[in-house]
Amino acid sequence: MSYEPPALLALPTRADIDAAAARIRDHVRVTPALRGGTGFAGVDADITLKLECLQHSGSFKPRGAFNRVLSQVELPDSGLIAASGGNHGAAVAYVARKLGLRAEIFVPEIAAPAKIARLRDYGATLRVGGRDYAEALAASRERQRATGALEIHAYDAFEVVAGQGTLARELERQAGPLDTLLVAVGGGGLVGGITAWHAQGTRIVAVEPERSRALNAALERGEPCDVDVGGVAADSLGARRIGAIAFALAQSRSVASVLVDDDAILRAQRLLWSELRIVAEPGGATALAALVGGAYRPHAGERVGVVVCGANTDPGLVS
Amino acid sequence: MSYEPPALLALPTRADIDAAAARIRDHVRVTPALRGGTGFAGVDADITLKLECLQHSGSFKPRGAFNRVLSQVELPDSGLIAASGGNHGAAVAYVARKLGLRAEIFVPEIAAPAKIARLRDYGATLRVGGRDYAEALAASRERQRATGALEIHAYDAFEVVAGQGTLARELERQAGPLDTLLVAVGGGGLVGGITAWHAQGTRIVAVEPERSRALNAALERGEPCDVDVGGVAADSLGARRIGAIAFALAQSRSVASVLVDDDAILRAQRLLWSELRIVAEPGGATALAALVGGAYRPHAGERVGVVVCGANTDPGLVS
Repeated sequence: MSYEPPALLALPTRADIDAAAARIRDHVRVTPALRGGTGFAGVDADITLKLECLQHSGSFKPRGAFNRVLSQVELPDSGLIAASGGNHGAAVAYVARKLGLRAEIFVPEIAAPAKIARLRDYGATLRVGGRDYAEALAASRERQRATGALEIHAYDAFEVVAGQGTLARELERQAGPLDTLLVAVGGGGLVGGITAWHAQGTRIVAVEPERSRALNAALERGEPCDVDVGGVAADSLGARRIGAIAFALAQSRSVASVLVDDDAILRAQRLLWSELRIVAEPGGATALAALVGGAYRPHAGERVGVVVCGANTDPGLVS
Repeated sequence: MSYEPPALLALPTRADIDAAAARIRDHVRVTPALRGGTGFAGVDADITLKLECLQHSGSFKPRGAFNRVLSQVELPDSGLIAASGGNHGAAVAYVARKLGLRAEIFVPEIAAPAKIARLRDYGATLRVGGRDYAEALAASRERQRATGALEIHAYDAFEVVAGQGTLARELERQAGPLDTLLVAVGGGGLVGGITAWHAQGTRIVAVEPERSRALNAALERGEPCDVDVGGVAADSLGARRIGAIAFALAQSRSVASVLVDDDAILRAQRLLWSELRIVAEPGGATALAALVGGAYRPHAGERVGVVVCGANTDPGLVS
């Protein structure tokens, strides 16, 4: 009765992430790591925020998307195709513009206006439809069979996970060894890449909204399973099912899983603005919500990294 | 007929700025320096943004205020008193709260609501009155004679200028030698400190709004003089007269002075949001406006630093 992962499921290693970092270095920003200062977020720990919200296209997603594209020997004339809650689509559109490729992006109806605006600005062909990411993905796959474009999966592809892992590599160089690293989870590309980099040493805490808990449910059940998705961060973290790569890494490396409620997410979002003048979308504030709401309680002096992973929202909503 | 600076006008040196950095290091954030990336702001130069908008209280001002307070042998029971367009007042209020002191802050009626809210949040006693900074300063000085509180001048005090200079010292450590450093000017505390640090090597470009040009007018005339103030950045850069310390430094070290219009300031503010997800107030975007509007044109490959010096605004206004 035990869950069998897909045959030949390849998991990225540190060497794969080193290779990804070399591949994408001319295309992504080294984003800042900022110490929160004494008492930040009401905890007696040493908090370092990784401000990945300042990455090109407003989220961490270009790391994986660039790595996937730049790993190809050749690319189809039809370019790139992707389904996305919004941030991944904006990143693929950014990558396509930067590399002179075409891109067709499928987003569900719940995608935030700020994300749709980004996609349009970058010149991608936009297809809006379906109730959630899973439905947009199904539509994109049907279309891919017709066009032959290169699919850039939002989270469950080897090169995508390896590319997202470059965030952990970069943060380690900036902040030195951390005891703990808090990261928000949607489909698991980022937590997968981070876990692949930190095979040992740093404790990884996967933070999910109570109402979008694909990894938490999978760890509980022992295999990926469908969950209902909702809540304030659903447009970025609302994956119905955790990716196979992220699940395999999280399960085998004993990633800790915690849940936060919408109130904690919104408080974390406001704290980032009031204390730091940082704008984060709800999903981007979800890792911090684990400190703000007490789902993760660090000990005194613990060195805790917190990934602020996206900022594609109406900035008028953060204060 | 030549202008005579005040007798015994002391100008901070690099050693004074080193001392200030040691004094304030436990109280201020090391703010990020972020490379803009290829083609940022439409120029073919290597742009590094100093994100001082992420400093405590939302602007660079705590550097100078902490240095002034921590340079004192003893402090009066009545605490601190200051006049401010808003950012300096918020910083003094922050300093007072952090060090357990009382603070009384005078702000003009044009102070931005975001700044007044900050002052209140930090627990300072707030006095709103006067049309501009100069009138608020006069009121604060009358009050200071009654209370004996320590005046923290917003820009024209030795320790304040030396404290602001720590920004240039920090940026030099982060970004290495820069060819050029663009900095917005109100009363001149920041440009004074930066010029004191970069006695040679880096070219300092002082950027002022056309409608608040206290330094530009003083350099033209050969001495500080009153100017009318207005425009979108008046609440942070609207000093009627440049400080004597900043003027002496700018004149003797051949600081370049350029002017930008309100349209360029607002375009720079929007660019910071759209490209970087950084919120800046108009005064905080004014240095970048010199690139955006073409008032300063770097050569290809020039290493240009741009100080983004404040973020105390309604974030809904930036997009």
